[in-house]
Amino acid sequence: MRALMLSTVLLLSACRPQPESLDRANLRIGLESAAAHTAIDAINIRYQRYMNENLVDSVASLFMESAVMMPPNARAVIGKENIRQWFAENPIPAGASYTFAAVEVTANGPVVVELGDYNFSMPAAGKVPAVSVNGKYVVHWRNVNGRWLQAATIWNEDTPVSQ
Amino acid sequence: MRALMLSTVLLLSACRPQPESLDRANLRIGLESAAAHTAIDAINIRYQRYMNENLVDSVASLFMESAVMMPPNARAVIGKENIRQWFAENPIPAGASYTFAAVEVTANGPVVVELGDYNFSMPAAGKVPAVSVNGKYVVHWRNVNGRWLQAATIWNEDTPVSQ
Repeated sequence: MRALMLSTVLLLSACRPQPESLDRANLRIGLESAAAHTAIDAINIRYQRYMNENLVDSVASLFMESAVMMPPNARAVIGKENIRQWFAENPIPAGASYTFAAVEVTANGPVVVELGDYNFSMPAAGKVPAVSVNGKYVVHWRNVNGRWLQAATIWNEDTPVSQ
Repeated sequence: MRALMLSTVLLLSACRPQPESLDRANLRIGLESAAAHTAIDAINIRYQRYMNENLVDSVASLFMESAVMMPPNARAVIGKENIRQWFAENPIPAGASYTFAAVEVTANGPVVVELGDYNFSMPAAGKVPAVSVNGKYVVHWRNVNGRWLQAATIWNEDTPVSQ
């Protein structure tokens, strides 16, 4: 009887939720980051296709309702519907294409930060020479009911783009 | 006796670590985000002073060893020492100053995403007119042994800056 009571007391104290140690958190974050990297690579393949085919509804479907998009040389675009409209007003020219890839992904549960590189290429057309611009980006992804959606996106070019 | 055994069994099953529910995670993230916002506002006050006084060692002390800085119209700068050097090579001109402020902070444990706005102002000097540029930024902060350090920083201007 006394042994059982003791075991109950021990269990109760073992049961108290312990704050996760920093080492344990970093280990878990490493594992979650690797899994999120794989998931985001898969999304980015679709995302590139949607962008390059100007499927603006599909592009918008990858953003949260409250998303913030921060294009260079323009004000921030706030909200999924405004982002959809921005893509509709800034279509990718025929023949041109964006490619991008995650370089580093950090995930802690539903909060993910992706760092990546992109390239925008456009073939020469008549007297207009071909364009190839490299840049970099950061995306804040959130897991919303099991789906990864963009909460914030920002990018900039590696070299000045002539206006 | 049977009651005690039953309570032990119940405790054991209650003790099994349960994955945090999405609702509970979002509530916790909300609370942690508010706390991180306050902490980062305080750091940003120091950060602005370090930048505007060209205290490059102090600026660098706010970055992780592995940090990635992504300035517009330039390649990414990788690593704390290269970032220190970049600030040394790109001093803020006398009289000019950066101001910036967090607009939205999302924290999940040691992983934080800050969205913010900045302004760069420089008074007129002789025939050179005054400059005032607004922009936006994203910082990925990490809590490293209790200190908030930048893991990644990216920014861009709201309007094209003439080269």
